[in-house]
Amino acid sequence: MKNVVAILGAGRIARVHAEALVRFQRDVRIKYIIDPYLTEEARQWAGRIGIENTGVDANCVFEDAEIDAVFICSPTPTHCTYIMRACETGKNIYCEKPLDSDIEKIYQAIGAIQKSGIKFLMGFMRRFDVNQQKLKNTVSSGKIGVPQIIKLCSRDPALPPYEYIASSGGIYFDSMIHDFDLARFFSGSEVSEVYACGNALIDPVLTEYGDIDTALAVLKFDSGAVGLIDLSRQSNCGYDQRTEVHGSKGFAQVGNVPETTVSIHNEDGVHEDKPVYFFLERYADAFVHAQATFFDVVNNGAEPPVTAYDGLQAVRIAKAATLSWRENRAVKLDEIP
Amino acid sequence: MKNVVAILGAGRIARVHAEALVRFQRDVRIKYIIDPYLTEEARQWAGRIGIENTGVDANCVFEDAEIDAVFICSPTPTHCTYIMRACETGKNIYCEKPLDSDIEKIYQAIGAIQKSGIKFLMGFMRRFDVNQQKLKNTVSSGKIGVPQIIKLCSRDPALPPYEYIASSGGIYFDSMIHDFDLARFFSGSEVSEVYACGNALIDPVLTEYGDIDTALAVLKFDSGAVGLIDLSRQSNCGYDQRTEVHGSKGFAQVGNVPETTVSIHNEDGVHEDKPVYFFLERYADAFVHAQATFFDVVNNGAEPPVTAYDGLQAVRIAKAATLSWRENRAVKLDEIP
Amino acid sequence: MKNVVAILGAGRIARVHAEALVRFQRDVRIKYIIDPYLTEEARQWAGRIGIENTGVDANCVFEDAEIDAVFICSPTPTHCTYIMRACETGKNIYCEKPLDSDIEKIYQAIGAIQKSGIKFLMGFMRRFDVNQQKLKNTVSSGKIGVPQIIKLCSRDPALPPYEYIASSGGIYFDSMIHDFDLARFFSGSEVSEVYACGNALIDPVLTEYGDIDTALAVLKFDSGAVGLIDLSRQSNCGYDQRTEVHGSKGFAQVGNVPETTVSIHNEDGVHEDKPVYFFLERYADAFVHAQATFFDVVNNGAEPPVTAYDGLQAVRIAKAATLSWRENRAVKLDEIP
Amino acid sequence: MKNVVAILGAGRIARVHAEALVRFQRDVRIKYIIDPYLTEEARQWAGRIGIENTGVDANCVFEDAEIDAVFICSPTPTHCTYIMRACETGKNIYCEKPLDSDIEKIYQAIGAIQKSGIKFLMGFMRRFDVNQQKLKNTVSSGKIGVPQIIKLCSRDPALPPYEYIASSGGIYFDSMIHDFDLARFFSGSEVSEVYACGNALIDPVLTEYGDIDTALAVLKFDSGAVGLIDLSRQSNCGYDQRTEVHGSKGFAQVGNVPETTVSIHNEDGVHEDKPVYFFLERYADAFVHAQATFFDVVNNGAEPPVTAYDGLQAVRIAKAATLSWRENRAVKLDEIP
Repeated sequence: MKNVVAILGAGRIARVHAEALVRFQRDVRIKYIIDPYLTEEARQWAGRIGIENTGVDANCVFEDAEIDAVFICSPTPTHCTYIMRACETGKNIYCEKPLDSDIEKIYQAIGAIQKSGIKFLMGFMRRFDVNQQKLKNTVSSGKIGVPQIIKLCSRDPALPPYEYIASSGGIYFDSMIHDFDLARFFSGSEVSEVYACGNALIDPVLTEYGDIDTALAVLKFDSGAVGLIDLSRQSNCGYDQRTEVHGSKGFAQVGNVPETTVSIHNEDGVHEDKPVYFFLERYADAFVHAQATFFDVVNNGAEPPVTAYDGLQAVRIAKAATLSWRENRAVKLDEIP
Repeated sequence: MKNVVAILGAGRIARVHAEALVRFQRDVRIKYIIDPYLTEEARQWAGRIGIENTGVDANCVFEDAEIDAVFICSPTPTHCTYIMRACETGKNIYCEKPLDSDIEKIYQAIGAIQKSGIKFLMGFMRRFDVNQQKLKNTVSSGKIGVPQIIKLCSRDPALPPYEYIASSGGIYFDSMIHDFDLARFFSGSEVSEVYACGNALIDPVLTEYGDIDTALAVLKFDSGAVGLIDLSRQSNCGYDQRTEVHGSKGFAQVGNVPETTVSIHNEDGVHEDKPVYFFLERYADAFVHAQATFFDVVNNGAEPPVTAYDGLQAVRIAKAATLSWRENRAVKLDEIP
Repeated sequence: MKNVVAILGAGRIARVHAEALVRFQRDVRIKYIIDPYLTEEARQWAGRIGIENTGVDANCVFEDAEIDAVFICSPTPTHCTYIMRACETGKNIYCEKPLDSDIEKIYQAIGAIQKSGIKFLMGFMRRFDVNQQKLKNTVSSGKIGVPQIIKLCSRDPALPPYEYIASSGGIYFDSMIHDFDLARFFSGSEVSEVYACGNALIDPVLTEYGDIDTALAVLKFDSGAVGLIDLSRQSNCGYDQRTEVHGSKGFAQVGNVPETTVSIHNEDGVHEDKPVYFFLERYADAFVHAQATFFDVVNNGAEPPVTAYDGLQAVRIAKAATLSWRENRAVKLDEIP
Repeated sequence: MKNVVAILGAGRIARVHAEALVRFQRDVRIKYIIDPYLTEEARQWAGRIGIENTGVDANCVFEDAEIDAVFICSPTPTHCTYIMRACETGKNIYCEKPLDSDIEKIYQAIGAIQKSGIKFLMGFMRRFDVNQQKLKNTVSSGKIGVPQIIKLCSRDPALPPYEYIASSGGIYFDSMIHDFDLARFFSGSEVSEVYACGNALIDPVLTEYGDIDTALAVLKFDSGAVGLIDLSRQSNCGYDQRTEVHGSKGFAQVGNVPETTVSIHNEDGVHEDKPVYFFLERYADAFVHAQATFFDVVNNGAEPPVTAYDGLQAVRIAKAATLSWRENRAVKLDEIP
């Protein structure tokens, strides 16, 4: 029997999910793609991949008894509204990050999820990457001992457009939130304090948007471990995203994924390919694994490995980091509701 | 408009092609899967991936005017028979390696292809691998100068069953044929002489089948360049398949593809993952690229990058290598018809 | 003509210098080894490598007109006293790090060096490492653009004894001072602010000594660039010391130096050797280059690449980091005299 | 007590030995450097490193009772003559490769060594390299099982001058002899048959000297294992010298040694340094270990790890390879005396 789903949103991430579902989740049918600002181009794209219905109003989705689940791929401020609605109508939820921009609404949504009994998976897709999972398993196996230092590095290939920056919520909330989630994932402990700093070194115009492009954060965990994150909006050398966990017995790291395994050796030295361009290339398989996990949760009662609580905590750390950066001081997580 | 195709064969490689077509060639419809020894299990598999018709007799394929192309994925000795039939009925051909086991039939098939004007792509899928293609482009770009030494290494993860060995045509014909093709590809020159040797070091029982499991070949090219190939049926350490081209200005190599990019560093040293298990994992994308290339040839008149002549030459080198190994002497390619 | 030198100190680092001088500085004669706590074992060691005189009182050195230069390899609190004395008596100085533990004395010593006209080289040997120098040249060449993020990682193989900890001045002063110097070296800018934190995660007993074993520091540079340093007293996996400079066009890194280039590939994966054990192995050549540079400064008037001012700045950053860690707040370098 | 030695020869390899002895063998005194064609420049070099006597006639060495050992670093055809003389006068011998160019003289020399009881070490320095030794230990430990394929690759940085070529004895004898020795070392078995081929691809003028610059050899071992060697006189990319042993459980390899551990990552990809330039850089430590081993044999009765028999076998394989290349046929080692 097939799962019948709707995709809320028709932008980049919505398409990643829709195309991966069509290709790799053979028993899933996408019945709707809904986007209030649906373009003709998006409608044609949906047709090409065989999706039956497109629309601008999500009511049809929530009123359709055939729908098992929704993929929330819409702008961040709409997430919790959709979650509340899905809880009321009994639709399971795959929710893209961040959980929402409004902490009050997040607490309400978590309450609704718990009361309704629907299944919820927080779409931090990096957790489903085979490399990050191997690192997590390595940490869990004890091969490197008790975690002491968690180091994460994230560099996007190029600056996003100013419009994106303007509505992004800032670098800590929009981008470093992935790293905050991974830091919790690998440390196995909660963050108690954050120190963050950074600058607009790549494009000073970002300061006009109240944002920066080069950001650091130091995390203190309840366990005594510490975390270091550095992030840039523009690497010029592919998608640089490496993770390191140092423990009492050694360390383990996730390296970048190169475009090819070719090396060229001549009088200039040894030349190898850059990492793949961006998250679509690097995490293509991770999205597929995340979706498969979601349907395993929905259909077989598997425990969701990433919960709304994980979504909440990442948002809180991002808010603490933003505050720390603005006030140039260490901020306890307790200061965030 | 869709291409309508039939798959001849329902074994491992036929399934690789069928599943890749379903997932990645959106404008292609597989109308038939034909295998004279079709099992109930194969029939169910075909149903699961949405294939309309299965059968044991290929006549329906060749008599069906709707069919544009056939994927020949059947046992090697049937290849040229199917090719002849496809030429007669105007079906384009994607043909799995080796071209055939009978050289006389190969010459006839090549004649038929030329006369009929159908499109033919020889399915040496390694040529479509992004890594091997980058190596080829590197050689063509002149970055390493004129090729002098071509080195290829191939190690399967584990011995195939004896039944497979018995009908395989021997290690040079069944397995090293890929390397012979790549050696021609990278050298840009024809092989003039072969010296081959080897032993059954992994499983001496192979000698009862007239075969070996550990094989070397030295190739001399018309250009003066030389080639070295070493091959084992069992690596115990994943799929070890590396390529190196040394030229007048330097060298370039294709490395293995590891399961993950994780490294573990502790008192025992640094530990990384094995290469991926076998060709299905390593060349999954190469099959997709080969198929896309085939439909570009069929639909858009693109030049086929691997021809029946390439298939013929690889078979001739394999036969020369087998003769060299048996007689322990260098064999000129001219000795093979 | 030979340079005639004295080594002040007979401990580990004094011996590194003495043995490197004997082997690699053919035109240098070590006339004295002086250590107030000279042991019989040290006396025998000096004899074995052919050193003429050993003693417990440095007066003979400063009163000997034949002596061109002193290598200050004694405990840190004695450094500036020896520097003052060398300036008075016209001996050139190679001084081990840190410059001194007392900032007032450092300022006096710098004044004395300037007035005396003697040659002074601050022995931050990592700056003379061929790998770090190549990184510096890469940054200077503009290949990675303007520096934005400097990342340094340092992990000693194993905890030093408690006695060492007790008199070390703390992890930031004793150990991270190397990284502070390299951060200035690579950024080409001065540090304006420091945030530091850490814990005694490896051995909680260190807290009894007012020290920690796992430490982080974030540096802000005048240029707007930022720095991240993480350091552990015990890696369990060899000497882990990597450097990364991210700039506007890309990044460059110095990797670890493995014990051998051997890799083992079997069913468990790929296994490589740990980095070399500690700084004696990793920086053996760097000490030789530093000495050669010193004699080039002394004999040929070359500009000293690392000055007493560099020594001062590293001490100031270390003191700011210690203060930051103790008070859990960002500390401006201006707060340090 | 010191060993007192003489160096026979004053060319490149003689100087490598003399300088390494001066620096690293503290208990050894070089009393003589003897070379029939001693230049003034060589005399000055000897003076600079503190060697007492230089001369053109080796008689003084053999007549000097104080001399414990000779280092034979003279042209190949003189080796066995010096060995005979050293045996007569009771001098221990460190002999550079190849053992000699005349097989008859080699057999006589081996007889003389055995009768005289002097200590003899064959200076195949690669065997003393820490990387090659780790590979040998890995093979011996059984981690990769029983050796099946031995692969060696050697590429010098640049063509030697024609005069060198003219008197070298050919590429197999002069250069590949190192690889023949390593192949025996790693296989733990004797070579029974050789097939060799090659061309003058780098410089066709070499054919006028009866030589080539690009050479392959296939070795068959008594154990059933096989070996592959490829060698070029000019790599253009540093000293490319890699070794691989494939066994029944996996494989192990020795990689190249890069000039630095720096990598540069920008829009062009990842750039690393070439391998070190040539054998002087790559095997600097190996010469020191070989010398230390020699004095351990001389002074402490340790078993010599590389014997005159090893020297003989490498010469025999080289002669078989040369014959194979000339006659284009597999040559049994039995054909060589």
